[in-house]
Amino acid sequence: MEKPLLYNYFRSSTSIRVRIGLNIKEIDYDYFALHLRKEEHRSEKYLKVNPYGLVPTIEFPSGIKLYQSLAILEYLDEIYPSPPILPTTSIKRAKVRAMAHAIALEIHPINNLQVLNYLRTNFSVNDEKIKKWFSNWVHKVFLPFENILSKDEEVGLYCFGDTPTIADICLFSQVVNNARFEIDMSNYPLIKGIYEKCMENEYFVKALPKNQPDAE
Amino acid sequence: MEKPLLYNYFRSSTSIRVRIGLNIKEIDYDYFALHLRKEEHRSEKYLKVNPYGLVPTIEFPSGIKLYQSLAILEYLDEIYPSPPILPTTSIKRAKVRAMAHAIALEIHPINNLQVLNYLRTNFSVNDEKIKKWFSNWVHKVFLPFENILSKDEEVGLYCFGDTPTIADICLFSQVVNNARFEIDMSNYPLIKGIYEKCMENEYFVKALPKNQPDAE
Repeated sequence: MEKPLLYNYFRSSTSIRVRIGLNIKEIDYDYFALHLRKEEHRSEKYLKVNPYGLVPTIEFPSGIKLYQSLAILEYLDEIYPSPPILPTTSIKRAKVRAMAHAIALEIHPINNLQVLNYLRTNFSVNDEKIKKWFSNWVHKVFLPFENILSKDEEVGLYCFGDTPTIADICLFSQVVNNARFEIDMSNYPLIKGIYEKCMENEYFVKALPKNQPDAE
Repeated sequence: MEKPLLYNYFRSSTSIRVRIGLNIKEIDYDYFALHLRKEEHRSEKYLKVNPYGLVPTIEFPSGIKLYQSLAILEYLDEIYPSPPILPTTSIKRAKVRAMAHAIALEIHPINNLQVLNYLRTNFSVNDEKIKKWFSNWVHKVFLPFENILSKDEEVGLYCFGDTPTIADICLFSQVVNNARFEIDMSNYPLIKGIYEKCMENEYFVKALPKNQPDAE
């Protein structure tokens, strides 16, 4: 198996997602750290790797280079199908993708570093209001997400069944990210349970920010 | 073929995406309009259909109900594979997904109605600044997107080859959405070319806001 290079940042939740995927698939990889707060992802050198200036990017020795965490996870699942991180039938896959996308499209993009920086710089939004903004988008999704988990017969130890999928990967990375803004999790016993289940899984734990070489 | 019901809104770009997908696959569907500005997507009745209170939702007579535009498009491509809206190899699929996700994750979520409303209501952001905000996130992605198109050997009449994929579906819907904020497209001749190509394609045209029953 060829050893890919992962351009990423310890704290970035899109980076956490791909690290978990690589860990679950037991794909050994090299770690290239880019310090987002030091704007290393905006360097001329990195823009040649990823013109969007975003992490993560994964590069395989064969020359294949891929962007976007969810596209990378889908790719990993296609070329290294075992163990799977998506169910086997189309309907189930659609349900799991919808759960993953609820987090990856409705929470994370609105709450990521560049958006918060824009609010601070251009609209003079203070820390207290940033915290409210962040938690607003989390709760808007977590509330119905918890509701869906409570009614879905296919919920198991994880969001869908008893093995982790991309839904858990996105959910876990978001909960990790939430910690910086002290999000109240008391209304989400099922989400909390799945997060705790992930915290017992070495593939998730290994992907945590604190366990990366660039951790601060 | 069972006739699905699409809960959507004429102007919503995530709704446009699914309408294009259904049109390309030549899937006949029933149109259920929800007026977002009238908060119809937040009604008790619709929250039973989609607990997130988001459009689109697709419901099949068999009882299958799916959320999230990209998850729906992936599902449609799996169950109605011809004509495909994703390429056949994993690498190519990953590239097309990354293009689609660059728009669906890095532009649209930050610029959608609920976020703009939050800025207006909570941070007293005026229309001029809203316009700057909107265009900032568009240009941040369109600039590298154009750059990638200019270097990618697999670009054809569309983003990837000579038939439309989910990358074109997302790009087209975004360009349609941009019109409301008068985004300067002069730096994006390739994106503009692909948009114009889509405008010659009846499946895209049929999905335009102005051609829907709830158009204003």
